[in-house]
Amino acid sequence: MRTDFYPSRVGSEAKLIKREDPVIHNRGKFDGPLNASDLDAYEENGFLMLNDVFSEDEVDIMAEQLKRTLENAKGEKSDTVVTEPEGDEVRSIFEVHKNNDFFSKLASNEHIVKAARQLLGSDVYINQSRINFKPGFSGKEFYWHSDFETWHVEDGMPKPRAVSCSIILTDNYEYNGPLMLIPGSHNWFVSCPGETPENNYEQSLQKQELGIPDKESLTQLFEKAGKRIETATGKAGMVLFFESNTMHGSAGNISPLPRSNAFFVFNSIQNQLEEPFSNASKRPEFLANREGIKPIDPQPTFEKEKVTT
Amino acid sequence: MRTDFYPSRVGSEAKLIKREDPVIHNRGKFDGPLNASDLDAYEENGFLMLNDVFSEDEVDIMAEQLKRTLENAKGEKSDTVVTEPEGDEVRSIFEVHKNNDFFSKLASNEHIVKAARQLLGSDVYINQSRINFKPGFSGKEFYWHSDFETWHVEDGMPKPRAVSCSIILTDNYEYNGPLMLIPGSHNWFVSCPGETPENNYEQSLQKQELGIPDKESLTQLFEKAGKRIETATGKAGMVLFFESNTMHGSAGNISPLPRSNAFFVFNSIQNQLEEPFSNASKRPEFLANREGIKPIDPQPTFEKEKVTT
Repeated sequence: MRTDFYPSRVGSEAKLIKREDPVIHNRGKFDGPLNASDLDAYEENGFLMLNDVFSEDEVDIMAEQLKRTLENAKGEKSDTVVTEPEGDEVRSIFEVHKNNDFFSKLASNEHIVKAARQLLGSDVYINQSRINFKPGFSGKEFYWHSDFETWHVEDGMPKPRAVSCSIILTDNYEYNGPLMLIPGSHNWFVSCPGETPENNYEQSLQKQELGIPDKESLTQLFEKAGKRIETATGKAGMVLFFESNTMHGSAGNISPLPRSNAFFVFNSIQNQLEEPFSNASKRPEFLANREGIKPIDPQPTFEKEKVTT
Repeated sequence: MRTDFYPSRVGSEAKLIKREDPVIHNRGKFDGPLNASDLDAYEENGFLMLNDVFSEDEVDIMAEQLKRTLENAKGEKSDTVVTEPEGDEVRSIFEVHKNNDFFSKLASNEHIVKAARQLLGSDVYINQSRINFKPGFSGKEFYWHSDFETWHVEDGMPKPRAVSCSIILTDNYEYNGPLMLIPGSHNWFVSCPGETPENNYEQSLQKQELGIPDKESLTQLFEKAGKRIETATGKAGMVLFFESNTMHGSAGNISPLPRSNAFFVFNSIQNQLEEPFSNASKRPEFLANREGIKPIDPQPTFEKEKVTT
């Protein structure tokens, strides 16, 4: 019998559990682009925004590739292609690090991968990847959640030793539904009430209904943060790293501006998925990679990439 | 047969119609708290935010009165009390300038009323009033709309010669669903496709389904604004005046912070309601005042009000 240090959806009570695992593992073991103050900020806040990772030309190339990939997916019947709840606009395409030449190259981008290694303190692999498109006027809200809560309960991720990397490919303003994060929330695990039904993922990708943190816990996290919520606003090309347990969400987007990003979840090679920490059966491979795991070898993505040491 | 200079919901085509009516009427005719640059900004943008109208003590009094009024309305069955679409939390209470001692006094606040007279260039009266409470975590979005479009089509307001005054009683951050406005949009009337059914107001107060501007027109307004959307963020006590035809909306509020405000629509005494510019029957008095109209005599609301000349 495994001990579950992060129990959730096991009773009717919500609970705030102090995180005992480190945020940054083996600090200093790996070289990479993040300096000491970057690492400090990530450790304290649970996220880090970087503005100078990619050149404007590189951002243009990524945005063009994303657009093309979305267009090619229109009308495609596949589990990895997710549409808006109402309508058939493509919202997300999963598994792009395996199924798409360009994005598989981007998934091993040396700047990104080296940063992920600095944060996780080990070799890393991709646990999940996707590109997201949130259309203007009708992009739906995404309620507060910790990714780790889902990955732990539904996918059997043992520890919060994963980091999400969002490469933001449209300008993000306060008015077009940017990601919102509660600083410091990664230090607390919100054990959510309720139980996980079979195949929850089929609807949870469109609208989250389970693993929902209670208002009381969210209010406590907000107050611990000094009543602050950070919004990931910035120019296209911004890279956001956020810790697997950081509480985040986003409002709907009624503005005319769409939002798009490429999204990679790096997991520590020492934190590979086990049996789910619940009675549910495993989610599909495109949501939770288990097959053929091997460490990523960092590579330049673009012809003349900036030197990232 | 009246000529309708602002036709809407009369066909299937959306259309952008240039506003021919002035924004500020009879500039200089009335004394008041707004200076020349305030008036210029309102004329250009279609809205104006003022931060020093009320003292902190006065803001506290207003917030307390709002809270008390909402609590007293709980469970009350009345057309003027509107709850959230899902749940029974009170979202708005209408007609507070008639039914509530404090808010009727606030509705004739000398600073506010004199400003309204400066903008409308005539004596003014209240066309509609309400207090709004948008709860934390679950405040729903309000899609883009021009109030004048509704007031014209459904209430028979002849011209865009009205101004909404929102006294914002909670701190408004970018993350708790502040009002968003498109600068300069008051200079264009978006003629919306579709027709108005009977008793549209009963659902439109909860979720707007008709008189919805089309995406193409919204995009044009956004582009004319230099691709800008302004958010009404600021400290509690901020006063926002916005022109009846200014395009505005708000995202949902998933943050723990509620939002509340007192809301008064001042109409020019020379712009009183006629027959609706549609086949629909008139909306009720609490949405569109027609009875016993007389000019407001500006009065101090609080004991030691700041002198507003």
